[in-house]
Amino acid sequence: MAIITLTTDFGDRDHFVGAIKGVIYSEIENAIVIDISHKVSPFNIAEAAYILKNAYKSFPEGSIHIIGVDSELTPENRHIAVTIDGRHFIGADNGIISFLAEEIKPEKMVEINIHDRIESVFPVLDVFVKVAAHITRGGTLEVIGKPLDRLKSMTGLKPTANTRETQISGNVIYIDNYGNVITNISRNFFNKYRKGRAFEVQARNHRFTAIYDKYSDAINFNIEKSKRDDDGKKLAIFNSSGLLEIAIYKSNLETVGGASSLLGLSYRDTINVNFL
Amino acid sequence: MAIITLTTDFGDRDHFVGAIKGVIYSEIENAIVIDISHKVSPFNIAEAAYILKNAYKSFPEGSIHIIGVDSELTPENRHIAVTIDGRHFIGADNGIISFLAEEIKPEKMVEINIHDRIESVFPVLDVFVKVAAHITRGGTLEVIGKPLDRLKSMTGLKPTANTRETQISGNVIYIDNYGNVITNISRNFFNKYRKGRAFEVQARNHRFTAIYDKYSDAINFNIEKSKRDDDGKKLAIFNSSGLLEIAIYKSNLETVGGASSLLGLSYRDTINVNFL
Amino acid sequence: MAIITLTTDFGDRDHFVGAIKGVIYSEIENAIVIDISHKVSPFNIAEAAYILKNAYKSFPEGSIHIIGVDSELTPENRHIAVTIDGRHFIGADNGIISFLAEEIKPEKMVEINIHDRIESVFPVLDVFVKVAAHITRGGTLEVIGKPLDRLKSMTGLKPTANTRETQISGNVIYIDNYGNVITNISRNFFNKYRKGRAFEVQARNHRFTAIYDKYSDAINFNIEKSKRDDDGKKLAIFNSSGLLEIAIYKSNLETVGGASSLLGLSYRDTINVNFL
Repeated sequence: MAIITLTTDFGDRDHFVGAIKGVIYSEIENAIVIDISHKVSPFNIAEAAYILKNAYKSFPEGSIHIIGVDSELTPENRHIAVTIDGRHFIGADNGIISFLAEEIKPEKMVEINIHDRIESVFPVLDVFVKVAAHITRGGTLEVIGKPLDRLKSMTGLKPTANTRETQISGNVIYIDNYGNVITNISRNFFNKYRKGRAFEVQARNHRFTAIYDKYSDAINFNIEKSKRDDDGKKLAIFNSSGLLEIAIYKSNLETVGGASSLLGLSYRDTINVNFL
Repeated sequence: MAIITLTTDFGDRDHFVGAIKGVIYSEIENAIVIDISHKVSPFNIAEAAYILKNAYKSFPEGSIHIIGVDSELTPENRHIAVTIDGRHFIGADNGIISFLAEEIKPEKMVEINIHDRIESVFPVLDVFVKVAAHITRGGTLEVIGKPLDRLKSMTGLKPTANTRETQISGNVIYIDNYGNVITNISRNFFNKYRKGRAFEVQARNHRFTAIYDKYSDAINFNIEKSKRDDDGKKLAIFNSSGLLEIAIYKSNLETVGGASSLLGLSYRDTINVNFL
Repeated sequence: MAIITLTTDFGDRDHFVGAIKGVIYSEIENAIVIDISHKVSPFNIAEAAYILKNAYKSFPEGSIHIIGVDSELTPENRHIAVTIDGRHFIGADNGIISFLAEEIKPEKMVEINIHDRIESVFPVLDVFVKVAAHITRGGTLEVIGKPLDRLKSMTGLKPTANTRETQISGNVIYIDNYGNVITNISRNFFNKYRKGRAFEVQARNHRFTAIYDKYSDAINFNIEKSKRDDDGKKLAIFNSSGLLEIAIYKSNLETVGGASSLLGLSYRDTINVNFL
């Protein structure tokens, strides 16, 4: 069994994803192809990095992760294969894979150099599938690429603390299917600066004095259901990725809206935490 | 081979679905994971129930169906596992599974009680995957839960008949990909009250005196094609789920629109059948 | 291993696709079902034909391709099974399969005639799955259908040349996930009339004097990145399907827009190439 995932900005209407799967099933025995997402916004590296970082750890060691976002080969956009935490990643050196490697040092990093050996109408992905096939046959990365010392890093937004350490500031990095707003402030970063103090999360003119561990912790189940007015309640939680998230309880984008629209929070907006 | 389906409101852009599949393929040997739908409207129990009810019977006995809609564990939202008609369903006790059990008495119903044994960043789904893994290993539901007497029923819309039985009334319960409008009036319910009489289906100011068995039955193929004006014709049928549906022949939501927009019919709207 | 693909206009919210997969996995041993697309615009034969034509060649010989677009059985819409280039196609005789057969003569063509033997609530697809199951068991098409001499051809748009051969004219046949505009002018057709002359591609009031082989060929990498203004640059290429495409470099439909919206090009619009 060879588990291969796809994370792309190809969408789900065109022939691209189907064609790639056809090649994988033609060339790789016992392949299982799993879509992580094909709905990354076109060329959006930050979004692809966020999605893949939150998905890949669920896959077993040895799994192969192909990334088809901003992956056309150019002098400024090399193709790379990198092993991190026992999993293999194949894509362009555009910041996505280096984002995954922020916390865990890669075991191997190579620049793929087999392009001249491949006849193809869809070279970017054909190259990646060839590399995946090589790995599933037990091949080493050195055979299909030359070792790299470093990856291009994503010029991403990072949370900061002021000098007196009374405030930390982060940004909205993702808005999910429910309209919930995810920031780059991790539980670890928050705890490092909190030092036991009370705090206030500030997102535009909205304030939160508690950060929950799950959505329903914001609800008081001792009050009878018919007497509560929970749906639509705004709250802050550390989500399943360990990141500070501003959410609306049981939000529905199609009817009442989600945190993003209701609270006026967009991609890259600043979120502050003030320690009191 | 262990067939596991997913019906969720997670959408297809975020990492959630990929992460769950990663866990399933890591923990369950020979798993085949099949997406039923990830486009259920957020927290929409009625929609999830309709979709799953119409899909599950196509799957073989022994198949496992995980439901990720409104599934956060709370004092009011227990996790359950239920066997109906040889298939296993895992989700929250929020009305979805009880809707499936309306016509077929469940063989087994338990409240899942393994939550304290699970370390996880995504507890709801991790719990469900653990239960699925248990079932694929031949385990019984009693080992992972305690028997239940009854499920929470969905406070759904049900069709009614007036006392003189001259009229039955139902509601729009689903609008499909073509904009066709599906009601909760089943062929059985209709036949029970019809008693051989002529009838008129009334949906707002539109009236239908025939209910077809397939879309093209509304078309007269004895007339030459160039002389017919079929596309866009409104009609009533009993659809493949056995429910009364108001449709537009070869509707296209992107151009002319579907029955919902063209006839002004929305979710929960009333549809009447008058017997003459 | 039996590879079966699905190309439909069923969308990804309703139960239809899940139900079909359930039947396939119930009836066909070792099946691998691959979605090519479920987002074909409703009843859009040209779109389905374009998507499938560009995807199917990636699949191995022996693969089976089920087409669920405009497939209701009527006196004017027969069900057919056709073998082309070692792959099997099952669908309605509405022009989609004949489009695939334009360049490669089919090895076998039959009209399916097993409808009376099938009990089903969803006959169209059940019939197709039955035929697929028959093929995976090594059965011949003659057993499930009667030989056909010809298929109904798609009354599609074809590129033309003027009598003096100073101009060729084609049409927009597809707009992809990036908003790029794909025409029916193939590299072969272009080369046949070019005869070494200079040329100008004309799309509305936009003109292009070069047709690239890949998107990044439009970029001059000798200029330092910070001094270039590449994103949003309009260009013409022969795409991975060998068709003339008008594109925007790194277009994003959600922000700046794609070639279709920015250049005002829609489905069926005319694109000319003038030879100078």
